[in-house]
Amino acid sequence: MRVLGVDPGLTRCGVGVVEGVAGRPLTMVGVGVVRTPADADLGHRLVAIEQGIEQWLDQHRPEFVAVERVFSQHNVRTVMGTAQASAVAMLCAARRGIPVALHTPSEVKAAVTGSGRADKAQVGAMVTRLLRLDAPPRPADAADALALAICHIWRAPAQNRLQQAVALHTATAPKGRTA
Amino acid sequence: MRVLGVDPGLTRCGVGVVEGVAGRPLTMVGVGVVRTPADADLGHRLVAIEQGIEQWLDQHRPEFVAVERVFSQHNVRTVMGTAQASAVAMLCAARRGIPVALHTPSEVKAAVTGSGRADKAQVGAMVTRLLRLDAPPRPADAADALALAICHIWRAPAQNRLQQAVALHTATAPKGRTA
Repeated sequence: MRVLGVDPGLTRCGVGVVEGVAGRPLTMVGVGVVRTPADADLGHRLVAIEQGIEQWLDQHRPEFVAVERVFSQHNVRTVMGTAQASAVAMLCAARRGIPVALHTPSEVKAAVTGSGRADKAQVGAMVTRLLRLDAPPRPADAADALALAICHIWRAPAQNRLQQAVALHTATAPKGRTA
Repeated sequence: MRVLGVDPGLTRCGVGVVEGVAGRPLTMVGVGVVRTPADADLGHRLVAIEQGIEQWLDQHRPEFVAVERVFSQHNVRTVMGTAQASAVAMLCAARRGIPVALHTPSEVKAAVTGSGRADKAQVGAMVTRLLRLDAPPRPADAADALALAICHIWRAPAQNRLQQAVALHTATAPKGRTA
């Protein structure tokens, strides 16, 4: 099972591909960051994110895309940008019939560290260990994207298979939308 | 000058095309709503919005796209969906090199009614009058989309010309992103 994790953001969008199944050692396939210039206008930034995500999908052909679920507790301006970047990531995946899952930050932290309140350093350390890397991926957005992918592989494998079957069905069916 | 106004939303995305210049009577070219089923998953809804917006761009070839600027004062869940739908609209426009402008709800209300606090009915009545329609467009999202387009035509014509020149330049330049 190959999953692309996306930690959405306008300035830095973390992306990480992990392969494996629950209960076995996982493998990092790729990790990186899609960046857009803060001084570009919003439309162009969204186009740049689209191009970046498309490249990752083309190159790594994930079976699932896991995106961080956006909340609006935080800074209003940041959250709007995050929501917009996440929309582009979801759009790119759904357009190809790849099932998209959303996981909250605390679900991701709990999955990789055992605690929903873990800090960035702890998440980075566990991602490094679980994927047997030499050092924590930088920046933190890249590590978070890998953590999202790991979280997705470990959560509800049965649900994933169901979702994938539905996505495959709707991608090939004449009317592409589904309940 | 032909403007597509977009009142973003996941369930109903209002779209309206208005043609004209400031100081002359305006003409409605088209109005409608892009709908997505509330029970579909988010990725598929965003794809449906993309397809709908693309159809409007193909059919009406606007020179500008005006999108309502999303704030997060309101209901959190609604705002996230609105931000995501607006991202898709901006992405579709920017991908074609069409300049995108954002206007706040109060800017739009002030432009068409003279008051930033006008209610839906007042906006609908003024849209009907300004575009010389027989009745207010329904639903309200469609009227709001027309109001956005009118607002855009009336605000800062000089700025629009500059923006269009920049967009034309960046669309033809080898590196498509700009300051």
